Amino acid sequence: MMAEIIAENRCFGGRQVRFRHRAESVNCEMVFSVFLPSSSRHQKVPVMYWLSGLTCTDENFVTKAGAQAAAEALGIAIVAPDTSPRGDDVPDDPEGAYDFGLGAGFYVNATQAPWSTHYRMYDYVLDELPAVVGETCPVDVSRAAISGHSMGGHGALTIGLANPDRYASVSAFAPICAPTECPWGEKALTHYLGDDRSAWQAHDACEVVKAAKQHLPVLVDQGSADDFLAEQLRTRRLMEASEGAAYPMTIRLQAGYDHSYFFIASFIESHLRFHAGNLA
Amino acid sequence: MMAEIIAENRCFGGRQVRFRHRAESVNCEMVFSVFLPSSSRHQKVPVMYWLSGLTCTDENFVTKAGAQAAAEALGIAIVAPDTSPRGDDVPDDPEGAYDFGLGAGFYVNATQAPWSTHYRMYDYVLDELPAVVGETCPVDVSRAAISGHSMGGHGALTIGLANPDRYASVSAFAPICAPTECPWGEKALTHYLGDDRSAWQAHDACEVVKAAKQHLPVLVDQGSADDFLAEQLRTRRLMEASEGAAYPMTIRLQAGYDHSYFFIASFIESHLRFHAGNLA
Repeated sequence: MMAEIIAENRCFGGRQVRFRHRAESVNCEMVFSVFLPSSSRHQKVPVMYWLSGLTCTDENFVTKAGAQAAAEALGIAIVAPDTSPRGDDVPDDPEGAYDFGLGAGFYVNATQAPWSTHYRMYDYVLDELPAVVGETCPVDVSRAAISGHSMGGHGALTIGLANPDRYASVSAFAPICAPTECPWGEKALTHYLGDDRSAWQAHDACEVVKAAKQHLPVLVDQGSADDFLAEQLRTRRLMEASEGAAYPMTIRLQAGYDHSYFFIASFIESHLRFHAGNLA
Repeated sequence: MMAEIIAENRCFGGRQVRFRHRAESVNCEMVFSVFLPSSSRHQKVPVMYWLSGLTCTDENFVTKAGAQAAAEALGIAIVAPDTSPRGDDVPDDPEGAYDFGLGAGFYVNATQAPWSTHYRMYDYVLDELPAVVGETCPVDVSRAAISGHSMGGHGALTIGLANPDRYASVSAFAPICAPTECPWGEKALTHYLGDDRSAWQAHDACEVVKAAKQHLPVLVDQGSADDFLAEQLRTRRLMEASEGAAYPMTIRLQAGYDHSYFFIASFIESHLRFHAGNLA
């Protein structure tokens, strides 16, 4: 059950650590990365979970987002899990496509064979990962926020908004806002959850917004020059849903930014400050 | 002669741009990356050149160092060249080793066959790259600083200290301080410059320090947990040389940091602020 350290680097006075552990929810070994600010030497610190996008592992955000400076300044840990189960016995897209299977768990609990044996990233992110982090790291997992990018923005919104008792705030960069209505989402949800679209509702942020009984602070950033905006991300659908449900959200269209980590790096401090204000 | 844009991303309000151009000094096509702060829309800005280490391209620093936030705040462009000539006709280490040939130009002008046809990174960094940047970008190349990591720290020190009319200040992260006395340096200098060690002097920072007639502000950071410190980097040799030559330098041993980009990210803002103070 315990996680073992497989890499560690000092960073901004804190520690960037990589852990490996046997994960029951996804029935395989998983790796996750944690930034621990220096203040965690003396006290448990709050945490922001970061869910990455298609093709990513736990490492992309860690090496490219430049989030550690602000996390150190604010005294917040950042936990970045992988984006799918991994291992030789974990089934992948038969054609090796980037948008389904390995690196593309879509943060759901699959119900369809052969995916349901391992692809249970919703439970992994919501329950098992926080339990392991709480056991292993000087983190107060009762003070948590959740964020993510693209597929991970979808995960942050759907998991976060449906579990307001577990997160103080939710944010997303370029999230897939309406996966029941876009090619990436329709492909993944069909395979993982089957053809009955009623089972998809809990994994579409626009639907989760409608069902939400308790509101959390929500911040979304979307680049106006993002090549995926019109077909896959559909930020306007989230704007409409939040307005329709009277769920207040800050949704910012950022002029000229694209889908890359340069966009994330430019605004990650803003997101961390937003979460810090709600975790305090 | 002109460079063409092959990629561009908005970043912290500025632009992260990648250029390709035909480079005469190294007799091949070269790619370099430039961060242009938003202030460059209205005026030419000063520049810090960044020289990367073994195995890197122009992209490692750009994606991993998180330097753009501080460069935007300070109004400084950052130009990151590749670490060697590239192309099918550029000879590489016969065994494909990481520490010589492609990705390992060591910022010298090779004099030995077959290397001398392309491996002229000293001239490329000192003369051709600034000329192309000055033609292509809103950069005042007369206001320049130079920095780098590991092999690139060696390049920044040897090129910078020997050309005080061209740079306002010099800095380095974990530089190879005495390449004439370490395995990486001895291998590379033997191949590129031949067996006559007198030809190596200009490419050993400790020797350049002794010969320097004009002093520049110099800042060096070295991690105490760097696995390469004792055998390859030898920071103490630079401390001795600067003391012996009465060349004032700020050389900081940073407790617990290793050779990774997590170390660079932790202190790059400090280096940019140091250069900004000297470029003003």
